[in-house]
Amino acid sequence: MKEKEGKEKDIEKRFAALKGQVENLTKTAPENKLVMICFSGDLDKALASFIIATGAAAMGMDVVMFFTFWGTPLLRDKKKKVGGKDLLGKMFGAMLPKGVGKVKLSKMNMGGMGTAMMKSLMKKKNVASLEDMIALAAEMGVRIFICEMSMDLMGFQREEMIAYPNLTYCGVAKMLEEAQSSKVQFFI
Amino acid sequence: MKEKEGKEKDIEKRFAALKGQVENLTKTAPENKLVMICFSGDLDKALASFIIATGAAAMGMDVVMFFTFWGTPLLRDKKKKVGGKDLLGKMFGAMLPKGVGKVKLSKMNMGGMGTAMMKSLMKKKNVASLEDMIALAAEMGVRIFICEMSMDLMGFQREEMIAYPNLTYCGVAKMLEEAQSSKVQFFI
Amino acid sequence: MKEKEGKEKDIEKRFAALKGQVENLTKTAPENKLVMICFSGDLDKALASFIIATGAAAMGMDVVMFFTFWGTPLLRDKKKKVGGKDLLGKMFGAMLPKGVGKVKLSKMNMGGMGTAMMKSLMKKKNVASLEDMIALAAEMGVRIFICEMSMDLMGFQREEMIAYPNLTYCGVAKMLEEAQSSKVQFFI
Repeated sequence: MKEKEGKEKDIEKRFAALKGQVENLTKTAPENKLVMICFSGDLDKALASFIIATGAAAMGMDVVMFFTFWGTPLLRDKKKKVGGKDLLGKMFGAMLPKGVGKVKLSKMNMGGMGTAMMKSLMKKKNVASLEDMIALAAEMGVRIFICEMSMDLMGFQREEMIAYPNLTYCGVAKMLEEAQSSKVQFFI
Repeated sequence: MKEKEGKEKDIEKRFAALKGQVENLTKTAPENKLVMICFSGDLDKALASFIIATGAAAMGMDVVMFFTFWGTPLLRDKKKKVGGKDLLGKMFGAMLPKGVGKVKLSKMNMGGMGTAMMKSLMKKKNVASLEDMIALAAEMGVRIFICEMSMDLMGFQREEMIAYPNLTYCGVAKMLEEAQSSKVQFFI
Repeated sequence: MKEKEGKEKDIEKRFAALKGQVENLTKTAPENKLVMICFSGDLDKALASFIIATGAAAMGMDVVMFFTFWGTPLLRDKKKKVGGKDLLGKMFGAMLPKGVGKVKLSKMNMGGMGTAMMKSLMKKKNVASLEDMIALAAEMGVRIFICEMSMDLMGFQREEMIAYPNLTYCGVAKMLEEAQSSKVQFFI
C-alpha cells in the first residue's frame, strides 16, 4: 500500500513537472502573426508589403507593419501641412515623397513613365491602388507602427501623417517584441 | 477505494487534457522549412537566394522560393517565344531580362563590365553559375512558386517560362500558408 | 488488482510517450535569437541592421549578423593594408568602400552631400554613428559572421578586416544552422 501511494505521489510530481514544461512551450510558441519592417520607399516594395499584409489579415493572421527610414514618408498625408520645421526638416520634407501617390518604381521608372504605366496597368488588371490597400488594411485591423527615430531624423511631425486607426509611434524594441512572438518576419 | 478511483479518473482526465495541448503544439510547431520571397531581379540577389536555397536543401530543409515582381522575369526561358501579347505586355517583355543569363549586378554593373567580371570570377573560383544552381535546386527538390499577379501584370505567359519540376503558379495566400509553417523566412 | 496494475503500467507507458514528445518539442523550439543576413552595402541599411542588432541584444536576444556580398566590405578596416592581391582583387579592393566610414545612402546620396547631411543629423539627434554601434554590438556580445565565399570572390583577406571579438568566417550552412533555431530572421 505504501509503495502504491509512493508511486501515485511520484506520478503526480512528474505530471506537474511535465505540465509546467508544456505550459512554458505554449507560452513561448509563436503566435499566428506576421511582422514586416517596411524600410523601402519604392512603389513596388510598398505594393508588395501591402499585398502581403492584407493577404495575411484575410487569412486571420495578426499583422504588424513597422515603417522606418525611406518607408516613413509613404505615410505622410499629402493634404496636411505643418510649420515650424528647421532647415534640414524642410529639406527632407521637400525631397521625400509626400504620401503613397508620389512614390516611384525602384526600376523602370523612366522619368515617371514606367510608374504611370504600372499604375494604369494595375487599374486595368483590377489590382487595388496603394491608397485603397491602406484603407483595406485599416479595415482588416492591420496594425501600423512608425519608427520614432526616423520621424525625428527626417523632421516629420505626427500632425502630417495619414489618419489610420491606432497608429503607433515606437522604437525598435517594440517592433522586436512583436517579431519575437510572430511566426513570420520580412524586412522589405 | 472510492477516493482512489476518483484520483485515477482525475489523472486520466488531466492526462488527456495535457495530451491534447501537446498534440496542438506539435501540430502548430514550425516545420524544418525555408520560405524565400524572391522579389529582386538583380544578379547578386538571385545568386544569394539560390546559394541559400541549395544550401538549405542540402541540410535537409524543405525549401520554397516564391518569385514575384522583378524576380519573375528571371524564370523566363530565353529560347521560348510566345505571341498574342498586347502592347504593354510586349513592352515589359522587351524591357525586362529574359532569363538569368541577362540579369545584372545591382551595384558596379558599369555598363555590363562589372557583371561580366563577376561571372568570370565565379567561374574561376568554382562558384556555380545561376543556370547551374537552378538545375541543382530542381534536382534537390527546391519548390518554385511564381506569383500569378506578377505574371498577369507583366503580361508573361506560362509557355515562356523555364521548364522546372512542379512549377507552381499561385498567389500570396499560398506563399503565406507555406511561410506560416516554416522556421525561416527571407524577403530578398 | 491485476486490472489496476495494468492501468498503472498503461499510464506509465503513455506518460513516457508524452514526455518524449514534449522533450522533442522543447529541443526543436526556436531560441530567443535573431539572425540577420547583412547583404547590403548601403549606409542606411547598415544603420538599420546595427540598430536592430543592438536593440535585440539589449532585450536579451542572442544576435547573429551574417555579412555577405556588398555587406562584406563594410567590415574592412580602413587602416589595414594587405599585399599580394591579384588584379581583380585589387580592383574590388579599390572600388568597394573600405569600412563603414565610406558607405553611402542608397537614396539621396547626391554626390556625398546627402550622406554627409544624414551623418551630421545623426550626431545632432544623438544617434550613434555606425562605428560606435559596431563597438556597442561587440560589447553586447552580438556575433558577427563573414561569408567566406564573398571574401574569396572579392579577394579580401582576413588581415584587412576589423578587429571584432570572435569574428567567424563561415559559409551559408553555418548561417542557416543559426537561422533554423532562431525566432526572428531578416535579410537586409
